[in-house]
Amino acid sequence: MAERTKYILDEADMPARWYNIVPDLPEPPPPPLHPGTREPVGPDDLAPLFPQALIAQEVSTERYIDIPEEVLDVYRLWRPSPLYRARRLEKALGTPARIYYKYEGVSPVGSHKPNTAVPQAFYNAAEGVTRLTTETGAGQWGSALAFACATFGLECEVWQVRASFDQKPYRKLMMETFGATVHPSPSELTESGRAILAADPASTGSLGIAISEAVEQAAQAENTRYALGSVLNHVLLHQTIIGEEALKQFELAGDTPDVLVGCTGGGSNFGGLAFPFLREKLAGRMDPVIRAVEPAACPTLTRGKYAYDFGDTAGLTPLLKMHTLGHDFIPDPIHAGGLRYHGMSPLISHIYELGLIDAVAIGQEDCFAAGVRFARAEGIIPAPEPTHALAACIQEALRCKETGEEKVILTALCGHAHLDLPAYGAYLAGEISDHALPEEALEKSLAGLP
Amino acid sequence: MAERTKYILDEADMPARWYNIVPDLPEPPPPPLHPGTREPVGPDDLAPLFPQALIAQEVSTERYIDIPEEVLDVYRLWRPSPLYRARRLEKALGTPARIYYKYEGVSPVGSHKPNTAVPQAFYNAAEGVTRLTTETGAGQWGSALAFACATFGLECEVWQVRASFDQKPYRKLMMETFGATVHPSPSELTESGRAILAADPASTGSLGIAISEAVEQAAQAENTRYALGSVLNHVLLHQTIIGEEALKQFELAGDTPDVLVGCTGGGSNFGGLAFPFLREKLAGRMDPVIRAVEPAACPTLTRGKYAYDFGDTAGLTPLLKMHTLGHDFIPDPIHAGGLRYHGMSPLISHIYELGLIDAVAIGQEDCFAAGVRFARAEGIIPAPEPTHALAACIQEALRCKETGEEKVILTALCGHAHLDLPAYGAYLAGEISDHALPEEALEKSLAGLP
Repeated sequence: MAERTKYILDEADMPARWYNIVPDLPEPPPPPLHPGTREPVGPDDLAPLFPQALIAQEVSTERYIDIPEEVLDVYRLWRPSPLYRARRLEKALGTPARIYYKYEGVSPVGSHKPNTAVPQAFYNAAEGVTRLTTETGAGQWGSALAFACATFGLECEVWQVRASFDQKPYRKLMMETFGATVHPSPSELTESGRAILAADPASTGSLGIAISEAVEQAAQAENTRYALGSVLNHVLLHQTIIGEEALKQFELAGDTPDVLVGCTGGGSNFGGLAFPFLREKLAGRMDPVIRAVEPAACPTLTRGKYAYDFGDTAGLTPLLKMHTLGHDFIPDPIHAGGLRYHGMSPLISHIYELGLIDAVAIGQEDCFAAGVRFARAEGIIPAPEPTHALAACIQEALRCKETGEEKVILTALCGHAHLDLPAYGAYLAGEISDHALPEEALEKSLAGLP
Repeated sequence: MAERTKYILDEADMPARWYNIVPDLPEPPPPPLHPGTREPVGPDDLAPLFPQALIAQEVSTERYIDIPEEVLDVYRLWRPSPLYRARRLEKALGTPARIYYKYEGVSPVGSHKPNTAVPQAFYNAAEGVTRLTTETGAGQWGSALAFACATFGLECEVWQVRASFDQKPYRKLMMETFGATVHPSPSELTESGRAILAADPASTGSLGIAISEAVEQAAQAENTRYALGSVLNHVLLHQTIIGEEALKQFELAGDTPDVLVGCTGGGSNFGGLAFPFLREKLAGRMDPVIRAVEPAACPTLTRGKYAYDFGDTAGLTPLLKMHTLGHDFIPDPIHAGGLRYHGMSPLISHIYELGLIDAVAIGQEDCFAAGVRFARAEGIIPAPEPTHALAACIQEALRCKETGEEKVILTALCGHAHLDLPAYGAYLAGEISDHALPEEALEKSLAGLP
C-alpha cells in the first residue's frame, strides 16, 4: 500500500461550528470608527448594508458560532475539501520536507469564496432580504455570491470593474449562468457611476468605484443589502471551516505542521486556514511558524502603515485600523487580482502587530514559476493568488533540502486557474514582471495617512 | 443527520483492475480490417502507432486487467471520484426519483479523459517511447494527454484544429502550462498539412486533418507514438474505473440504479460508466435500463448505419465496424465538441446491435436548459457534452413525477464547463439552435458506405 495522497473527511465529520479568534487574543482588535464622529461604529450604522445576524457576528466575542443546517447542506456540495500530501512535488524538489496543501478549488466556482458567500446569502434571505449587491474585479467573489444567491433564491446584482468585464468574459458568463445580473462599472445606474462617466466617458473603472455603486444601490433599494467577500471579521469567521477541517485531517495523517503559509489579499483565505492553527499555538498544543505571503506589487503587511484608513477608494466605509498602502493606492496590474487590495483585514493586521504571525512579499515571476512547477507535479494549475504561498512553500522546502530538516509545511491552495489561464500564457511567453512597488510611490501614497 | 450528499471511497478502496467486457458478451465484436487486404489487422499493423502493451489490451479477452501501481499513484491525485446524490436537483424538480451522478470533473483537466491518458503515457514511457503525438478539437483530450505526459516525462505534441486554436485559447494555454507543444492544424510540419495549405492557405482545419498530421508524425519520427482519446477498446477499458467505483459507491448508498444514462461521442465516457453495470446486468445481479444519449446534430447510434468505415476523414485508419454517419460527414458546429464524431466505438456499436442498451438523440437547446437547471441546483456547471445525459435524466425524473415512481437514476457527469462558458453565454443570449440533422444530408452522407 502506497503512502496516502490525500486525506478526506467524511461528511459526518465536517465541522459544524465556525471559530472566532477574538476571545483568544491577548487583547481585542481596535474597533472601526465612524468617519464623521470618529466614534466606534454601532450596529445601527451598519444596518442599511448588512443583516442583523452578520452584524452580530462582526462584533461577537463568542469563541464558536454554530453553522446553520441550511448552510451545512450547501457546504456538503463540495465540503469537506481535501487535504493533499504533495508527494509528487516533494519528489520533484528532492526535499526531505513533507508538504501538505488544503485545496479549496473543489468548490462550485473554484475558490474558497463560497465558504462565506453561502452563509451571507442564507442570513440575508432569512431576514427577508430579496436582493444582494456586490462589486467584483476579475470575478472570483462575484461568481461565488451569484452561486450562493441561486441557492437561496435571492437576486444578485454585481458591479464588475469595466476593464475585467470587457477583457475577461468567462467569469461574467459564470455569474450569468448562476442567474446573476452583471453590470460593467462605472455604470449609468448609480449616482457614483454617472459622476465618474460624466468626468470620463471612457473610464475602465476600479474596485473602489464598483464598491461605491454596489453600496449606493444597497442603501437605497428596497429589501436589498450589500455583501463583501473579505476583510471583515464575519467573513474571516466563515472561512475558518478551512482550518478546522485541516486540523482534523492532520490528525488522520498523524502529523503536525511546523510552517503554515497562505497568501493574503484582504485576508480571508489566510485567516480561514491560519486562525484555528493559531488557536492551537496560543494554547500551547503546537508551535507552527505562521506566515502571510503578499505580492511585491502590493506589500500591505510588510511595507504598509498600521493606521485608520478607509476600506474603499471613495471614502464611503467606516475607518478601519489596518495595514494600508493608502486608500487611493492603485497597485500595478499584476495577475493575482485577488491580492490587489490597498488594505489588510483589521483582524490580521492586529495579529501581525501582536507578533503572532510573520509576513513576506514575493514578486510574481517567482510565483508563476512555482505555479508551473506545482502544476506539472500535482496536476492542479493553481490560481495566481495561491502561487504566492506556493513560492514561499517551495523556498522553505528547498531550505530543508540544504539543511536536511524534515519540516512539515502546510499551505492553502485557495483555487485553480481555469479562468486565469491567460496569465500563465503571459508567463510562458516571458511577458511577466514583478512590479515591485518603488519606494517613492509608496512614500507618496502613505503621505495622506494619519 | 441529513441525508448524504456524496459517497466518497477511501483511496484504499479504489479499484485496482480495469474491466474488459469482451469475454462477457454473448458474441465477440467484429474485428477491425486492413483497408487494403480487408483482412483483420494484426499487432504488426498497429506497432508503428501504439506500444505493445496497449495493442495487447486492444485485443485482450481477459476479463480483468491489473492497473499498474505507477498509474494508480497518479489516479490518486483525484480518484476515487465522488458519486453525488442530486438531492437539491430532485427537490427543484419535485420528483420522487432518486438521482445520482458520478462526477469526473475533479480530475486535473476537468474531465474523464485523464483516466486513459495516464495509462497510455505510462505504457509508452515503459517501452522507451519519448514523445507522443495526438490531435485535439476544443482541447479536452489534448490537455489530458499533456498532463499525463508531464507526469511521466514524455514530450507531447498536439495538433489542434485551427478554428479552436484561434478562437478558444484557454485549453491551448492549459496544454502549454503542462509543457506540451501545440500546433494549429493544418500545419507546415507534415505532408498532410502542407497539402491542405497548398490547396487552401486559409483552411481552419478539421479533426480529420489533425488526426492525419499526428499519425503521420508518429509513424515517421523516432521514439514517437500516437495516442487516441476514445473509440478504441483499450481506451474504453481504462475508463471502466468510473463504473467500478460507482458500483462500490452504490453499495455504500444501499441503492441500485433502475436507469443509467450517459452521453456518447466516441463512447469512452458512456462505456466507462456503463460496462461494469452491464456486467452486473448480464449476470442477473441487477437490471438497469442503460441508455446512450447523443446530439440531434450527430445521431450516430440512432440514425447512422452499422457498417465498416474509416475512423478518420482522410481514410488512413483501419476499417472499423461501427455505427457511422460516413467518414466524410462533418456535423454542424454545436458546442458539445466532444460529441461531434462521425462514428461510434465499435464495442458500443456491437453492444447496441445486441440489444443490450438503448439510445436517444436530443437537441442542444434542451441540453443547455438542463445544464442551467442543474448548475443552479447543484453548483456544478456541466460541460456541454454531459448536458445531453442530464437532459435525458431530467426527462426521466419528470416522468417519475407524473407516475409517482421512485426510480433510481444514475448519470455520468464527465466534466465541468469552466473552459466552455461562452457556450452558456450563447445559450443565455438565445443564440443556440438544435442543428438536428436534415434527412437529405444524412442520406447523402450514408450513400458512400458499403
